Amino acid sequence: MIVAMLETATEDQIDAVIDAMTEAGVDVHRTTGKMQTILAAVGPTAGLDLSKFEVLPGVMHVHRISSPYKLAGRAFRPEGTVVEFAKEVHLGGAEVQVIAGPCAVENREQIFAIAKCVQAAGAHFLRGGAFKPRSSPYSFQGLGIPGLELMREAADAHGLLVVSEVMEIAQIEPMLPFVDCFQVGARNMQNFNLLRELGQIRKPVLLKRGIAATIEELLLSSEYIMSGGNYQVIVCERGIRTYETATRNTMDIAAIPVLKKLSHLPVVADPSHGTGRRDMVAPMAKAAVAAGADAILVEIHPNADKAVSDAAQTLFLEQFEELVKDLRLIATAVGRTL
Amino acid sequence: MIVAMLETATEDQIDAVIDAMTEAGVDVHRTTGKMQTILAAVGPTAGLDLSKFEVLPGVMHVHRISSPYKLAGRAFRPEGTVVEFAKEVHLGGAEVQVIAGPCAVENREQIFAIAKCVQAAGAHFLRGGAFKPRSSPYSFQGLGIPGLELMREAADAHGLLVVSEVMEIAQIEPMLPFVDCFQVGARNMQNFNLLRELGQIRKPVLLKRGIAATIEELLLSSEYIMSGGNYQVIVCERGIRTYETATRNTMDIAAIPVLKKLSHLPVVADPSHGTGRRDMVAPMAKAAVAAGADAILVEIHPNADKAVSDAAQTLFLEQFEELVKDLRLIATAVGRTL
Amino acid sequence: MIVAMLETATEDQIDAVIDAMTEAGVDVHRTTGKMQTILAAVGPTAGLDLSKFEVLPGVMHVHRISSPYKLAGRAFRPEGTVVEFAKEVHLGGAEVQVIAGPCAVENREQIFAIAKCVQAAGAHFLRGGAFKPRSSPYSFQGLGIPGLELMREAADAHGLLVVSEVMEIAQIEPMLPFVDCFQVGARNMQNFNLLRELGQIRKPVLLKRGIAATIEELLLSSEYIMSGGNYQVIVCERGIRTYETATRNTMDIAAIPVLKKLSHLPVVADPSHGTGRRDMVAPMAKAAVAAGADAILVEIHPNADKAVSDAAQTLFLEQFEELVKDLRLIATAVGRTL
Amino acid sequence: MIVAMLETATEDQIDAVIDAMTEAGVDVHRTTGKMQTILAAVGPTAGLDLSKFEVLPGVMHVHRISSPYKLAGRAFRPEGTVVEFAKEVHLGGAEVQVIAGPCAVENREQIFAIAKCVQAAGAHFLRGGAFKPRSSPYSFQGLGIPGLELMREAADAHGLLVVSEVMEIAQIEPMLPFVDCFQVGARNMQNFNLLRELGQIRKPVLLKRGIAATIEELLLSSEYIMSGGNYQVIVCERGIRTYETATRNTMDIAAIPVLKKLSHLPVVADPSHGTGRRDMVAPMAKAAVAAGADAILVEIHPNADKAVSDAAQTLFLEQFEELVKDLRLIATAVGRTL
Repeated sequence: MIVAMLETATEDQIDAVIDAMTEAGVDVHRTTGKMQTILAAVGPTAGLDLSKFEVLPGVMHVHRISSPYKLAGRAFRPEGTVVEFAKEVHLGGAEVQVIAGPCAVENREQIFAIAKCVQAAGAHFLRGGAFKPRSSPYSFQGLGIPGLELMREAADAHGLLVVSEVMEIAQIEPMLPFVDCFQVGARNMQNFNLLRELGQIRKPVLLKRGIAATIEELLLSSEYIMSGGNYQVIVCERGIRTYETATRNTMDIAAIPVLKKLSHLPVVADPSHGTGRRDMVAPMAKAAVAAGADAILVEIHPNADKAVSDAAQTLFLEQFEELVKDLRLIATAVGRTL
Repeated sequence: MIVAMLETATEDQIDAVIDAMTEAGVDVHRTTGKMQTILAAVGPTAGLDLSKFEVLPGVMHVHRISSPYKLAGRAFRPEGTVVEFAKEVHLGGAEVQVIAGPCAVENREQIFAIAKCVQAAGAHFLRGGAFKPRSSPYSFQGLGIPGLELMREAADAHGLLVVSEVMEIAQIEPMLPFVDCFQVGARNMQNFNLLRELGQIRKPVLLKRGIAATIEELLLSSEYIMSGGNYQVIVCERGIRTYETATRNTMDIAAIPVLKKLSHLPVVADPSHGTGRRDMVAPMAKAAVAAGADAILVEIHPNADKAVSDAAQTLFLEQFEELVKDLRLIATAVGRTL
Repeated sequence: MIVAMLETATEDQIDAVIDAMTEAGVDVHRTTGKMQTILAAVGPTAGLDLSKFEVLPGVMHVHRISSPYKLAGRAFRPEGTVVEFAKEVHLGGAEVQVIAGPCAVENREQIFAIAKCVQAAGAHFLRGGAFKPRSSPYSFQGLGIPGLELMREAADAHGLLVVSEVMEIAQIEPMLPFVDCFQVGARNMQNFNLLRELGQIRKPVLLKRGIAATIEELLLSSEYIMSGGNYQVIVCERGIRTYETATRNTMDIAAIPVLKKLSHLPVVADPSHGTGRRDMVAPMAKAAVAAGADAILVEIHPNADKAVSDAAQTLFLEQFEELVKDLRLIATAVGRTL
Repeated sequence: MIVAMLETATEDQIDAVIDAMTEAGVDVHRTTGKMQTILAAVGPTAGLDLSKFEVLPGVMHVHRISSPYKLAGRAFRPEGTVVEFAKEVHLGGAEVQVIAGPCAVENREQIFAIAKCVQAAGAHFLRGGAFKPRSSPYSFQGLGIPGLELMREAADAHGLLVVSEVMEIAQIEPMLPFVDCFQVGARNMQNFNLLRELGQIRKPVLLKRGIAATIEELLLSSEYIMSGGNYQVIVCERGIRTYETATRNTMDIAAIPVLKKLSHLPVVADPSHGTGRRDMVAPMAKAAVAAGADAILVEIHPNADKAVSDAAQTLFLEQFEELVKDLRLIATAVGRTL
């Protein structure tokens, strides 16, 4: 941490800041320049609340010098993390993965039809929601655990792995037998109680970026899970809110290479939520793979127009088959497989 | 709902859209213009997912014509809602209210000193957090129920009402004996399970706007609570995330008169979170009252620099006393009391 | 400037950065910590392009320590700037000013009616546009110099000062005889050629914040004018673009106290463009004065609904009279006059 | 245009709105529903200022039904526009183009070295700035016309076409002999006087999206040029301003397929300005081609670290050669050539 004092700061003000820094547990290195005084903190500053110093009298700016996250930082594992799943499936390695399925599991017929299609396309992950709290209290709220049972059955019948969203701490335990990977949704990215519990388990967690979260905040939330000992974290870009309304969100494709640079964690891209429009899913999925994404997460449905939720952004099965073929070409063009 | 078709839309496409609308339960009124065809839905459209129609072939745009919320809309109660508390305190009437207290209840001495100051300033509401899940797993996590007991005791000793944040459904029941008003934080604005439960109780709920939520989304979340029968909802502007970094958030002061126009619910402004900086709290609190806010929510602490959380935005008690005097002048200038 | 190196930076990389800094004309002060090396630049860094250093190998972050503007900074004139106009009118002092007029000067009758109303309300500034390049090539493009002649005549007849927008360098010279203050619109905030020329004249310049400009960028543009010797700069908050669509722009009221803190320049607020809605102009004008604005800029028209431009945000004359009365009460409440 | 009236609107208010619409030159089609009245405008509404109706008493919302642009809309040329250049080079066809060069032309040696590299890589366009108004009045301001002469000479010697930015109307005429394509920068996207003049010439114009402009506004500015008779417009995505600070701008890759859908104009992507970071240029260029961009615009320099401007985002020549090879693979993967 560097504290830059105002040119007009008095010696008393400088002393008060030094005291506050010392009290916070760091050693202070002072540089008195012609124009201004600079105070550098030596020692661990990861947990410090910088804004606390920013409002002290005489302070101009406070800068964080060291990264606020350690375990999630690239330096922690320069070679990159590869998350290992059953059936020798890896996420974060040379092979680009495809994770596909309906927004919500609706019934046996639907999820089996989808699982069959996912397998046929050569993908390894089936996704689907069992708990769907909705903006209207009268809407479909998901099948719950029976939905997970159906999904597990369909996945097993087709050699697939299961990814499903967990929304509350109380759901972790009952979900454990059914999922290979927990998904944390954008609205829960900073639900620290939930993240803490997920740090205690030993299954991969796919953490989605909040709609207004910075890349740094996404990595801080990853750190929260990892600090509990669960290092199998996968981060996911799914669009941020901006002033542009042509798409539901603005997909921040640059977040993919930025995350790969700052962190060792695998990066997934979700063009379904990233754009909110079926006709934009394919070009954005291709863009994400071209930019270095380790996996693509897409919503698909045999009768996409009538999906009980997220219909507008859901691909028909034939569109999905086409997309996987196209992604395979892009993956090859960037030196990967799919 | 109005569906505007593309100029190039075929008759088959138009028919397919009409079928989809009919299937969704609305009657369709068709206008065929020289340039394009327009399909108007007649009947209840509040629950419809518009984007579903937007991606149908031949569709240019879909517009929502009627408001997506009813109970929260101004037309539902044109005269405005006044929330009644014990001790004949009203929020939403002529008197501007002040809600003040620490970010987190720390100990008896702290909360009693603050309660004394709040009472002395002539304010009626004591706020304070008992559950504080923090971004670092090693930070102070709040006192829990014992913190609420302390706050209730301090409030009763000084004739004050208690406002405190609820973070999970499981906390509602144990909090009930201690609080006069539940606060829902920005991160939970769209935690629909929590909102649904709060709709079942009969105590006021102060609902904060999410950091990336639109005004419409805030009112939709209010509607969610109200649809359960709890009409005592108070909405709160607390800053949104924009590209400007001089303040932690950009406080959307215009949201105050916009909310007063669109809805009958009382509106609170939180300049502490709205700016994140102690030196900006007073001017923004004054601006909020000048713009029509029904109450101001501020963080105060006898030793603000050492508050265990949110130190940078917390006022010292003397600053708070000064602020209430200034707000009284502004309230008078806009024809209200305080 | 502080350059924080990565923990993994090599001695060669550190040396290369030191060389680049030295070449850029600053002395380098090196601190080698346990975790990382920090390089502090000693000497003038105001003109340096920091991003140049940010991409050098081994660099983690580059922080600007000193303010990038000097002349516009509060330290340059701690007591604040008061811009002096003819008729002993001051902007930036104890008196809050009101600047009012139509978006565009349309004809003699219109501008005289408005000038009469402005005078009657006790305000001192008449504003109006003479050059109106519009988004449609078929729309009204403004009266040009004859419009300025009319405005000058109307202002003189009613003891008012004239504020009008300059859009190109070529307009400065012909406008000089007619205006008391040049306005630079939001789209020209970073038209550096225009700013440079306005630095050469000796008349006040009212500089509007760009729709996507930070407060720092607004002050850098002010600096650009001041560096030419023209210190009579007035800055203006007029709304920024965010994801919220309930108002045309989001008026950043906090920018007012932030600007007053960082800079000595007078601050104007424009609630007409700030909200784009007639019914939001009054509450936001009041909020701006409560937050410390030195002047309010509003669009008014005798027949607001039929104004040739900006009709939706233009006040009727009676609404304006009412507003000035209300603002007077707020000004008094914050210890100022109007 | 559709005007939706409030449920509470009176017959007088409805009549007043109908009058205002009629006066604006459209026929009105009225639908009186159980809940509310809807007024549809029949006739040309492209030039109408909708917000004018939005603030009329009794109005709830006004919706634009027809597209505000015609010439730039996909329906105007469903097959897409291919801009033809000398040497049988086409932009907008099957071949993806690469436009490369320095931010600013600095000297003969520099521009010839770059031209040689561009030719060697198999690209056809040389870009470079001759007029560089800078944020500091003391910075390099560009070589002006002599810079264009050098660029033309270098381009001709290597069989390349010249793209250069025009910043003022007065520069159009002197630039004409030297450039094959005028570039309009992001800050001038809504400089309507400049756009109008560019509509009068018969050379291609590459129009960059403003940093806070919507896709619709970009197309409206294109329309402005086209309405003068110059249909050779190329639009360019170069990053928008959001809350994320890890990259200088957030590159809106989805704008590429959205523009291709809404418009027939060729789309260029500029990953140099889009990210502001040399290390992000390659992944974002690949993403743009994968998403359907017709051309890539990149800044390159033999000594990128010492470029007089935009150094941080400028590629070294070897990096550029590598990038073109990679883009060729991506182009092939999406069924195009390069």
